[in-house]
Amino acid sequence: MSLRRIGLLGFGTVGTGVLELVAKNMWDRFEVTTVGVRDTSKPRALDFPSVTSNLQEVVDSDEVDVVVEAMGGLEPALTLIKRALSLEKPVVTANKELIAKHYDELMAFGGDLRFEAAVAGGIPIIQVLKTLAQTNRIESIQGILNGTTNFMLTEMEARGVGFEEMLTEAQALGYAEADPTSDVDGFDAMYKIAILGAIASGEQLDLDLISREGIREVRPGTLADASKFGKRVKLIASWTIKGGARVAPVALPIEHPLARVDGPFNAVVVRGDFVGELTLIGRGAGGHPTASAICGDLAALRG
Amino acid sequence: MSLRRIGLLGFGTVGTGVLELVAKNMWDRFEVTTVGVRDTSKPRALDFPSVTSNLQEVVDSDEVDVVVEAMGGLEPALTLIKRALSLEKPVVTANKELIAKHYDELMAFGGDLRFEAAVAGGIPIIQVLKTLAQTNRIESIQGILNGTTNFMLTEMEARGVGFEEMLTEAQALGYAEADPTSDVDGFDAMYKIAILGAIASGEQLDLDLISREGIREVRPGTLADASKFGKRVKLIASWTIKGGARVAPVALPIEHPLARVDGPFNAVVVRGDFVGELTLIGRGAGGHPTASAICGDLAALRG
Repeated sequence: MSLRRIGLLGFGTVGTGVLELVAKNMWDRFEVTTVGVRDTSKPRALDFPSVTSNLQEVVDSDEVDVVVEAMGGLEPALTLIKRALSLEKPVVTANKELIAKHYDELMAFGGDLRFEAAVAGGIPIIQVLKTLAQTNRIESIQGILNGTTNFMLTEMEARGVGFEEMLTEAQALGYAEADPTSDVDGFDAMYKIAILGAIASGEQLDLDLISREGIREVRPGTLADASKFGKRVKLIASWTIKGGARVAPVALPIEHPLARVDGPFNAVVVRGDFVGELTLIGRGAGGHPTASAICGDLAALRG
Repeated sequence: MSLRRIGLLGFGTVGTGVLELVAKNMWDRFEVTTVGVRDTSKPRALDFPSVTSNLQEVVDSDEVDVVVEAMGGLEPALTLIKRALSLEKPVVTANKELIAKHYDELMAFGGDLRFEAAVAGGIPIIQVLKTLAQTNRIESIQGILNGTTNFMLTEMEARGVGFEEMLTEAQALGYAEADPTSDVDGFDAMYKIAILGAIASGEQLDLDLISREGIREVRPGTLADASKFGKRVKLIASWTIKGGARVAPVALPIEHPLARVDGPFNAVVVRGDFVGELTLIGRGAGGHPTASAICGDLAALRG
């Protein structure tokens, strides 16, 4: 079997992880032929011979069979993905905002578009949920889908630190972005639960209708009080058949399967009418776990 | 699309669950056309119009496109499955002993044989592990794969009950078989870890080389002592690249992802070089979770 040739868009942590994984574990099935970046002058963690800032050229290239999008952001990613699908090239993306906002439109292309890496990093929740949606009535989904806020809440509880102090520390450690709003105000978790809800229900969720509260208002005292009553506060993204999606800090009883998921870990609990309660826990971010998810999509491509 | 017609072998708890699930959630894609049983005089939980004791007729029938084997035991299940595969009919089975003992032989048929339900009931560990085996170097697998012994250990620890007393109680509750050796001596867990090890390594494991210890020797005092040191005793089935498979009671530190998996739940922890640690927890037995796994296989059939 000849190698399938990947055009990789994005050369950050995730793109680098994909290059590493393909070279180490999937070299007999795939090769990365070209990498597209916005800024070719930026230093990269790996040397790669063919790097271009002409992103459309990567998509169009005769030497690219499959496009992996690991740039993030809406544009130019959306235009590039639509172009690849219209050329009948399979696309694998890690882009949660794009999938959450353009789910119906992208599904309508009918192409081979996969996005395991968009939700919960290395946890194969998309693969699992797609199967369950065919066999079970999915009753509810609950998840810890943002590792940054989960790390912050874990540390705030353990050390009695306040939100602002913790944010500064998380930024210094590289766990939080310079502009932290996507994480701490719940946008990132909202996009992810919107994607899971879309798979469970079969159609795109209206993001404007998702109630969203982040962790800015969580005080160390609140965490300590919850602890006294045998509870732990987590930023929970949830979806139910009847109630739709929401993101909010929730004090979970310690017996709840998400109560002890700490630090940078993500987790999802799915309830279905036949399977009952199913919990998946794993690394929700980082170059290697995210590359694992992207490459699982590559392995599953049609044809 | 026309309905795919299922010939169901076995009409116990699992077979009944499959009938229920197909009727409720997959009626637009599948129908059960005939059910084969060993003894037609035995009372069944559901009425079904077409029940026969001619099992080979079920496999051979022109009105059967897919065979679901939910009988258990080696024969006649093995002969029937091989016959179905040689007729190029897809087969879905829940039979762990059969898959563990005949993995290489059955894989050599090259047909569409699936066995998600053979390991850990509703937990989609086969689906997940098959993907991971293509993308990661699987370093280790650890699982609580037998719900009967996990329920017994949980109760023995909570109530200070001894093994014999607990076994009698579990048998009265229907959680343990009249002949309990498959569960309490670790055979059931051994078959399951052998299947997971075969997927991770790509070849059948030699069952004679698997070190196997059940829970007969576990004393309430052992559980209490472990608890004093912040540990919990679980029957762990494990596999590593270098060490192969084993089944034994292990005192796990309370922070271990399997330490708090109680009662009838199953769980599996997989470690891979890119994904890191991934944990799946869910219902490991019962008609409905097992039917969920079987029907996930049906949904994924080729063609």
